[in-house]
Amino acid sequence: MFFILNFEIMTFTVTILGSSSATPTSHRNPTSLLVNMNHKYFLVDCGEGTQMQLRRYKIKIQKIKHIFISHLHGDHFFGLIGLMSTFHLLGRDEELHIYANPDLQQIIDLQLKVSLTELAYPVIYHPTNAGKSEVIYEDDKNLVKTFPLIHTVPTTGFLFYEKTRLRKIKKDFLHKEEVPFDMIPKIKSGADFISEDGKIFKNEEITISPPLPRSFAYCSDTAYNESMIEHITNSDLIYHEATFMEDMKAVAAEKQHSTAAQAAEIAKQAKVDKLIIGHFSARYKELDKLYAEATAIFPETLLANDGEVFKVGGYQ
Amino acid sequence: MFFILNFEIMTFTVTILGSSSATPTSHRNPTSLLVNMNHKYFLVDCGEGTQMQLRRYKIKIQKIKHIFISHLHGDHFFGLIGLMSTFHLLGRDEELHIYANPDLQQIIDLQLKVSLTELAYPVIYHPTNAGKSEVIYEDDKNLVKTFPLIHTVPTTGFLFYEKTRLRKIKKDFLHKEEVPFDMIPKIKSGADFISEDGKIFKNEEITISPPLPRSFAYCSDTAYNESMIEHITNSDLIYHEATFMEDMKAVAAEKQHSTAAQAAEIAKQAKVDKLIIGHFSARYKELDKLYAEATAIFPETLLANDGEVFKVGGYQ
Repeated sequence: MFFILNFEIMTFTVTILGSSSATPTSHRNPTSLLVNMNHKYFLVDCGEGTQMQLRRYKIKIQKIKHIFISHLHGDHFFGLIGLMSTFHLLGRDEELHIYANPDLQQIIDLQLKVSLTELAYPVIYHPTNAGKSEVIYEDDKNLVKTFPLIHTVPTTGFLFYEKTRLRKIKKDFLHKEEVPFDMIPKIKSGADFISEDGKIFKNEEITISPPLPRSFAYCSDTAYNESMIEHITNSDLIYHEATFMEDMKAVAAEKQHSTAAQAAEIAKQAKVDKLIIGHFSARYKELDKLYAEATAIFPETLLANDGEVFKVGGYQ
Repeated sequence: MFFILNFEIMTFTVTILGSSSATPTSHRNPTSLLVNMNHKYFLVDCGEGTQMQLRRYKIKIQKIKHIFISHLHGDHFFGLIGLMSTFHLLGRDEELHIYANPDLQQIIDLQLKVSLTELAYPVIYHPTNAGKSEVIYEDDKNLVKTFPLIHTVPTTGFLFYEKTRLRKIKKDFLHKEEVPFDMIPKIKSGADFISEDGKIFKNEEITISPPLPRSFAYCSDTAYNESMIEHITNSDLIYHEATFMEDMKAVAAEKQHSTAAQAAEIAKQAKVDKLIIGHFSARYKELDKLYAEATAIFPETLLANDGEVFKVGGYQ
């Protein structure tokens, strides 16, 4: 029992379900991605066809309990009602939590009303406020925080981050000493251990440092926006939209989108480890030039492709 | 000019875009099909992912000017708002006509409102009335008529049929005689022709009979319903839902769907030439038994598969 607690696998991955911008292409669905954070499944945005993508990539959809919608442009939420209907038809009874602009609930409710559908499971809406940064989700290991983006409608980014991790108890100590169950979390939190015969074990002798907490930031859709940097600094991984190339900088600004170079500039200033760019305009059949523009500024740039899985941090 | 008018190709095909019922599978999208009727593109139902299917099968989406929605269950219309958005983003300015239950407009309008989208093209809604049969579309060659189906929400079937065709003028007559342009449609409609020197050409000598007008009927979703037979009798082709097999007849009745055998029974009684069955429950991985149940009653049964194209009638 102790060993399972002590050496559990701490998965933290991001699976791209859609990497196109407003219109889908033959290889790219509209925006969606799945964050698997310590075995909790968080769906982020839900463009049309997301349920088909989840099926294609063999992701167990009923494990999704929390869905985060960045803003109410169709390419980020038109697939939600279909996914919710499928949950219902597959007999779901577990709660579904949706974090989104409050207008979303009206849209969902109206569609359920006209189709005379009463969902068999509870849906809990958590309204987001695009004007400020706030923690909107918390469990024993994970936190999710919003931060404001700059776009043509109210839009939030999401930061997924681990709480400070507990220290790890050394294996050989657990083998040699009889440690009462209730002492385990105390030792993991930094307490010394005194055995029944009065021997004192200093915490630093019987534990090792925890891995650093990891974080992933989702920044889509947004104009070039330095004010987000404070929220995403030092992240292990960020996803930042890169709808256009630099020659369309003026169009990007007008539509409140970013270029690949601008995404790279944000990553560089925020001192993140790695940057995924996505939300590509359908005009780009090949991405090599767009990729070159980003890597010239931030070499650790990765291209989003539907179905690709990225690890967050190095502790897996 | 005369020859083009006289010998134009009269295409009439049905392309399956989605053949699954409520939940999509890895090979079957939710319901949609495209009717190409004398080069007019009619989209019938528009489940989630229909725009991706249109792209996959290389169908020019901007040729779609008329969309018919049978009822407001999500698997028949959740893809409409995405397709409409894509029309907009691709710069459409031509009218789009939507034939559907009047509640659909509310759903579309609300989604456009929250995303601050003003479509660049006009949308004309034509409310359907599921309580009666009526002609809802007409042009010089084609007609579309609704007919009532029996389902858990108001649902209409659609009959696509050609008007009585004009007679064809014989080639050698047009080669030999100088026929004024305004006489062509009169001769095609049955008039005799009198040449400048007073010679009378009887219509039956200078024309040949037109091909028979063709028709395609779309019957999804519906409980077993003999009252639809009068509307689809003698059709060249019908599409009838076949959600279940005969061992689930009671479930089919409860959910107001049909079994494969019931679809075949309707086709048989309506004396149609061919029947396509589709809208299969996701529980059926293989369709051979379902197909066997239908063909035992109506041998000219075809299985719907996404991407398949069926010809209507034999004059192409």
